[in-house]
Amino acid sequence: MPHIALNSAEPGIRGLLRYRPETARPLSELTEVLLRGPSTLTRGERELIAAYVSALNDCQYCSSSHSACAAAQLPEGMALVEQVRAGPATAPVPAKLKALLLIASAVRDSGRAVTAEQVAEARAAGATDVEIHDTVLIAAVFCMFNRYVDGLATTAPDDPAAYAAGAQHLITQGYVAPSAVPGHQGLTPYL
Amino acid sequence: MPHIALNSAEPGIRGLLRYRPETARPLSELTEVLLRGPSTLTRGERELIAAYVSALNDCQYCSSSHSACAAAQLPEGMALVEQVRAGPATAPVPAKLKALLLIASAVRDSGRAVTAEQVAEARAAGATDVEIHDTVLIAAVFCMFNRYVDGLATTAPDDPAAYAAGAQHLITQGYVAPSAVPGHQGLTPYL
Repeated sequence: MPHIALNSAEPGIRGLLRYRPETARPLSELTEVLLRGPSTLTRGERELIAAYVSALNDCQYCSSSHSACAAAQLPEGMALVEQVRAGPATAPVPAKLKALLLIASAVRDSGRAVTAEQVAEARAAGATDVEIHDTVLIAAVFCMFNRYVDGLATTAPDDPAAYAAGAQHLITQGYVAPSAVPGHQGLTPYL
Repeated sequence: MPHIALNSAEPGIRGLLRYRPETARPLSELTEVLLRGPSTLTRGERELIAAYVSALNDCQYCSSSHSACAAAQLPEGMALVEQVRAGPATAPVPAKLKALLLIASAVRDSGRAVTAEQVAEARAAGATDVEIHDTVLIAAVFCMFNRYVDGLATTAPDDPAAYAAGAQHLITQGYVAPSAVPGHQGLTPYL
């Protein structure tokens, strides 16, 4: 049961976005830009970073939701997501993505845990500065969402089908309404 | 030296906001709403929560910056900020703020570390559901900012005067330009 009286029965982040629309707006826009905006990392790769960090933080709602989003947007599907969650060092992912996942894991421990060697490894594997930046920020953002969702003890469905359905909605509709590109009005978080 | 080549010499979060304006916009709006928007918690109290969490995360830039912002907006000034950073349990703050700071400390460890007893304690001391919500989210947001700022190894001034000057700018101008209220255009992050 959530620690506070929400105004809906929606699980996880959805109930919190509904409860506090003032913070929902920038939170949703941030997620949209980072996970779905223009990038040289695919949407599947970015969702994989989000799912991996959320799993490390043991956040059932976020790890299930973003695992479903990653699986639906990666050619290798849920099998690869599960291998990454078991440990990126041995998962069958390209060297660049492996190096970025290791940076994300360090960020999850602490910003100060990221080393120059890890960054050099990512760069040697072909990562750009923006890709390194976005990986650090995605990992940091999910350290926030995981704490927000679990810190208020929101509920999380057990049925994987619920997350798969949510992923299809997010993939087709985005984290904000289609009109909500930066600079435009009418931003509506996904609920 | 930062891990990536930024496009300015600005320290801490400022260099990162300058580097990636697409994410700067929602990050700045989120900070503005949470730390300066309408609330029954004072701006000084909210900055104190941000400073305390940032100090627990050992983030020099964020803890110095938000300590300066808290000190400038609390009647008791920097002396109280330092007492809270040394441990809220013994700091001379009202029971409600003390209970909220203890919740923030739990969020910093993990969302799952927040207990029903801690929430009940805050409520018994007069905290509302929205205050509990906002405390959890402020703590979570600074777990993000601290990781973002340190994960990319941004620089941090040593001189307290630099943070005091930055605090005066933030207090008068906000984290976004004055026109940037939700629903309006022309959002400009503070740089």
